[in-house]
Amino acid sequence: MIMDKKIRVAVFGAAGYAGEELLRLLLRHPNAEIAAITSRKNAGEDVATVFPRFTGLPLKFVAPSEAMENKNFDAAILALPHGLATEFAVPLLQAGVKVFDISADFRLKSTAKYKEYYKADHPAPELLSQAVYGQPERYREQLKTADLVACAGCYPTSSILPTAPLLAAKLALPDGIIISSCSGVSGAGRKVDLPYIYPECNESIKAYATVGHRHLPEIEQELAFAAGVPEIALNFIPHLAPLNRGINSTIILNAAPGCTLEKIGEVYEAAYGKEQFVRVLPAKRCADTKYVFMTNCCEIGYNFDARTNKIIVTSCIDNLTKGASGQAIQCMNIRFGLDEAAGLL
Amino acid sequence: MIMDKKIRVAVFGAAGYAGEELLRLLLRHPNAEIAAITSRKNAGEDVATVFPRFTGLPLKFVAPSEAMENKNFDAAILALPHGLATEFAVPLLQAGVKVFDISADFRLKSTAKYKEYYKADHPAPELLSQAVYGQPERYREQLKTADLVACAGCYPTSSILPTAPLLAAKLALPDGIIISSCSGVSGAGRKVDLPYIYPECNESIKAYATVGHRHLPEIEQELAFAAGVPEIALNFIPHLAPLNRGINSTIILNAAPGCTLEKIGEVYEAAYGKEQFVRVLPAKRCADTKYVFMTNCCEIGYNFDARTNKIIVTSCIDNLTKGASGQAIQCMNIRFGLDEAAGLL
Amino acid sequence: MIMDKKIRVAVFGAAGYAGEELLRLLLRHPNAEIAAITSRKNAGEDVATVFPRFTGLPLKFVAPSEAMENKNFDAAILALPHGLATEFAVPLLQAGVKVFDISADFRLKSTAKYKEYYKADHPAPELLSQAVYGQPERYREQLKTADLVACAGCYPTSSILPTAPLLAAKLALPDGIIISSCSGVSGAGRKVDLPYIYPECNESIKAYATVGHRHLPEIEQELAFAAGVPEIALNFIPHLAPLNRGINSTIILNAAPGCTLEKIGEVYEAAYGKEQFVRVLPAKRCADTKYVFMTNCCEIGYNFDARTNKIIVTSCIDNLTKGASGQAIQCMNIRFGLDEAAGLL
Amino acid sequence: MIMDKKIRVAVFGAAGYAGEELLRLLLRHPNAEIAAITSRKNAGEDVATVFPRFTGLPLKFVAPSEAMENKNFDAAILALPHGLATEFAVPLLQAGVKVFDISADFRLKSTAKYKEYYKADHPAPELLSQAVYGQPERYREQLKTADLVACAGCYPTSSILPTAPLLAAKLALPDGIIISSCSGVSGAGRKVDLPYIYPECNESIKAYATVGHRHLPEIEQELAFAAGVPEIALNFIPHLAPLNRGINSTIILNAAPGCTLEKIGEVYEAAYGKEQFVRVLPAKRCADTKYVFMTNCCEIGYNFDARTNKIIVTSCIDNLTKGASGQAIQCMNIRFGLDEAAGLL
Repeated sequence: MIMDKKIRVAVFGAAGYAGEELLRLLLRHPNAEIAAITSRKNAGEDVATVFPRFTGLPLKFVAPSEAMENKNFDAAILALPHGLATEFAVPLLQAGVKVFDISADFRLKSTAKYKEYYKADHPAPELLSQAVYGQPERYREQLKTADLVACAGCYPTSSILPTAPLLAAKLALPDGIIISSCSGVSGAGRKVDLPYIYPECNESIKAYATVGHRHLPEIEQELAFAAGVPEIALNFIPHLAPLNRGINSTIILNAAPGCTLEKIGEVYEAAYGKEQFVRVLPAKRCADTKYVFMTNCCEIGYNFDARTNKIIVTSCIDNLTKGASGQAIQCMNIRFGLDEAAGLL
Repeated sequence: MIMDKKIRVAVFGAAGYAGEELLRLLLRHPNAEIAAITSRKNAGEDVATVFPRFTGLPLKFVAPSEAMENKNFDAAILALPHGLATEFAVPLLQAGVKVFDISADFRLKSTAKYKEYYKADHPAPELLSQAVYGQPERYREQLKTADLVACAGCYPTSSILPTAPLLAAKLALPDGIIISSCSGVSGAGRKVDLPYIYPECNESIKAYATVGHRHLPEIEQELAFAAGVPEIALNFIPHLAPLNRGINSTIILNAAPGCTLEKIGEVYEAAYGKEQFVRVLPAKRCADTKYVFMTNCCEIGYNFDARTNKIIVTSCIDNLTKGASGQAIQCMNIRFGLDEAAGLL
Repeated sequence: MIMDKKIRVAVFGAAGYAGEELLRLLLRHPNAEIAAITSRKNAGEDVATVFPRFTGLPLKFVAPSEAMENKNFDAAILALPHGLATEFAVPLLQAGVKVFDISADFRLKSTAKYKEYYKADHPAPELLSQAVYGQPERYREQLKTADLVACAGCYPTSSILPTAPLLAAKLALPDGIIISSCSGVSGAGRKVDLPYIYPECNESIKAYATVGHRHLPEIEQELAFAAGVPEIALNFIPHLAPLNRGINSTIILNAAPGCTLEKIGEVYEAAYGKEQFVRVLPAKRCADTKYVFMTNCCEIGYNFDARTNKIIVTSCIDNLTKGASGQAIQCMNIRFGLDEAAGLL
Repeated sequence: MIMDKKIRVAVFGAAGYAGEELLRLLLRHPNAEIAAITSRKNAGEDVATVFPRFTGLPLKFVAPSEAMENKNFDAAILALPHGLATEFAVPLLQAGVKVFDISADFRLKSTAKYKEYYKADHPAPELLSQAVYGQPERYREQLKTADLVACAGCYPTSSILPTAPLLAAKLALPDGIIISSCSGVSGAGRKVDLPYIYPECNESIKAYATVGHRHLPEIEQELAFAAGVPEIALNFIPHLAPLNRGINSTIILNAAPGCTLEKIGEVYEAAYGKEQFVRVLPAKRCADTKYVFMTNCCEIGYNFDARTNKIIVTSCIDNLTKGASGQAIQCMNIRFGLDEAAGLL
């Protein structure tokens, strides 16, 4: 355990919004220092050129290759585009660096599902089984010794955290789950494309990928684990909403016989009563993205419709914090034996 | 038929957003003239005091009592708060004025449902059976001779239009319908209350009334009519979203055996192929509030998930236009034999 | 005069926001029909592919060259990027087509100023002197017979309309004028570039081009004409604000001796009392972009600070309507002897 | 100096946005603990009832009278509405509590100005002279021993910080200063009033109080001090913009003879080169509210127009942080000998 010195952290692919959030959080982290900040495109530039909020700080982008040469750090957080993580993870792991990947590259356990959704064979199937799913509330013990962490995705975090305990407690049935989510535009990354320019997003709410979104198999995998069933097939319907940050997921579940509002509350209390970053609201209240904005919290609200026998759950996270960079740091804190909330309050 | 002269229209309760939208539309209506604009609170004031966009126009609020004295108009559009419509509708109907009510007061056929959701006996049950539901695409014939029109609500319009044809065609089952809707803040009216101030709404998406919203029985009533079943129980989950105008409804339906994407398209083509104000998108595309902003259109997108056997429909309207004032004018146009789109393009 | 038939209008460069607004307005124009819609990039496609709000309408983009072949129209509105208008205007004018250019290509009378701000010689200087400045409130007589109209820009419209009458009446001095404007993001066109994506614009207000913006010489030219002085040098400071549409200009002027609030009001009444699309607010009230949203109005508010001897004027327009497409149609209506407000209410 | 223990802080009037921001910052402050949280209206309630983001934390509102009884704290931060500070400050000061007032009650040195702008005699004129103006960059030494700190206002902070050094260095003239500012809606506090509801603010930019805003004398006072002149009369024009947080001020100054861009940069470097919370951008770049969002920074950009001999400065702050609660904590840190940035990074 390296409690007495700061852990050295490299951020790979730091020129996007998840990278910016990582830097923001690491800069105030009491037990971490930034060892390298990479960007293929911006190598050599001041970080402030890309993110003016860091003007005046001595931060520079280096080429990923440069950071890979000396590997002078304890942890690497990968905020790379889809498909690039393996190329970095393999040599980093060999060098003893702990790897926290924010992309979806190592989240699926099934290579078949990976191929179905990503239209390619996984380049390193052995890493899929090695990787620990980066969701502290459900895999804390495994994370303490994990070398490779596949941090949970944004939509999946907002979907799984409120749903898994209900399935595990058999209070909700694994069939017929509906998840309708709204995400702020930063969820698309810092992508320069017509659908993301301001006049196209403002005053606009629209669904997309209503069937077969890439986060679907990740959600189904983890909920099947939670329910203790071999497979779950559900509907996940994402929407783009005029927010910068935030995901609101509304989840409708078939209640098991005997379900009541009280029992739902008890299940949540048992699951999250001691969690620092999950906030369960009093019964019938609804989660609000505003109250998790720029925090590492997941807020959960619940209700029960006895007439239709449905459990209705709402959950909110900040997609860049609990849905990406904050969660990666939370996992890192656990792995290095630090206070789990270090740098996250 | 009074085609050769302009119909005279009184707007009751014109100081809210639906009232403002009514005035905006009526001012450019080629066959209508505004006969009276009432507001209890603002009687005597220039309309421009409340709505500066009408500065320079000779429009004044009068007390409702003053407008009721002479009843010098052919049509009255009521944009009053809940519960007040009966008091005006009865004498207006007696005087031969055609009444178009934007509130929910006459929409339910069942007095029991009314009592359940509004916690009071309906003051004029005979009007409930007399009123024609103001949704032109489904009740056009009845509207041609209606004296009292209960204009469809905003959430209900966005829910019923895309769902009713699928139920009527038996392509979707009446059980297990889920409707998750997001509404812009003008949907709450021009209400001055903490949850609606800008800093509370901006960067916020939150569900509310996840069980038992007042629009629920209206949706269930009309979908039961469409399905030809005595009763439907569904889940309707509204959300408040940071938009001024617009409702996005995402509807998940259990498909009947044999359902395909093509069949869904055919049902919509048969239902809406000739409708001027319903726009069905090509298969798999999703409706967007932006494309109906300040129009009287309902945009519908559809998809089919063979894996879970669900039909997923998205629909968007402008809550103040197709969801309120535009629809009222469309109904009025039908009733008075005018071009149905007069004033609405 | 061709009052008895519809004028045929071609829209060149219709795939941007000004083009979309032109189509929206022309589609409801009672005396105009759309003869051609051009886009180099989208030639052959349905207009609905680019602008889904037009789904179902029989509108197709053609190549500009195709529209130039037959020139089967009375008017051409050019919504092309900077620098391309001459290439179209010359042959169109030769063919007798009236040309309304929304770009800045023909707005400056001085070729020297053009070169200074656009870093190139003007390709057709003779057209600069021929073009009538497309601002109906100030050049209505000339517009009645103009063949080439250089429609006033968005920032210039919001700056000149409130300022010119004060200078013309010698109530304000031509020295030391300060104009600070905020524009919605559609003012940048439908440009796909990092500064315009939603997460960069939302919760952001920033100035840009604080010295030497390209709209500056246009404003100075017209204000010098209004003041009857050879030259004016002023400061114009644009800002990007999180709006879709709308420009708010705040203008600070040195008052001439004897200036009072009443005199300012009188000057405005004389200048705009009969104008349909300029709305002067009561003294001390301030213009609001919200009240001109999707209208062809310019709203003007004024105040006088006796302590510093400054006149403070606020003015708002919708940059896509009065600042671009609406104004072009207003000019076209004047040129063809139509009701000046046709299609604009 | 009480470096070895935590200072105990009471927050008075904590149910508004400045109060929420104070709690957010104090909760992560390493050297401070919250001793009392008062609200007349919400006394006895959990803080989470008013601010759900604090759900799960053991925070309760008490009546101000209860906090005043034992005065069991070292510092009191007053976030009360205008006019109430004196009533608390007098007994607190007598009890040896250091008082940091966020309101405008003690900012003006001149009782005459106070009466002119607030229409009442100041209730405790002796406190006006005793109070130190809470702007660390200009009054750091005095703050180290101040008992009563009148924290600088939001508009004033964004106006004075960029302007004072230019006046002090005689690079800008004290005459003819123009300040045009845009503020997010939280600047109005958590006020429930029609102009602040979402549909009124969204897509709206409007000026207000264009002559005689209450922050004007505060700005003039401090700039006169900086310029070393008895009095300054300037124009300050605030606008309401569709943001939650953030003020953007654009300031136009008459340059002194010999002014150049380089000299402006040198003045700023001398004034702020070592300041942790003032970030001067490279010449010609413009400040952006986005880059100070939820930070305690003031960002300053500058340009020089040789043609009109004007200096154009843009400055941005977060009105709730550097413009209110963050600045109060910065002052408190200075007063108690703590790291000036404690709790603010």
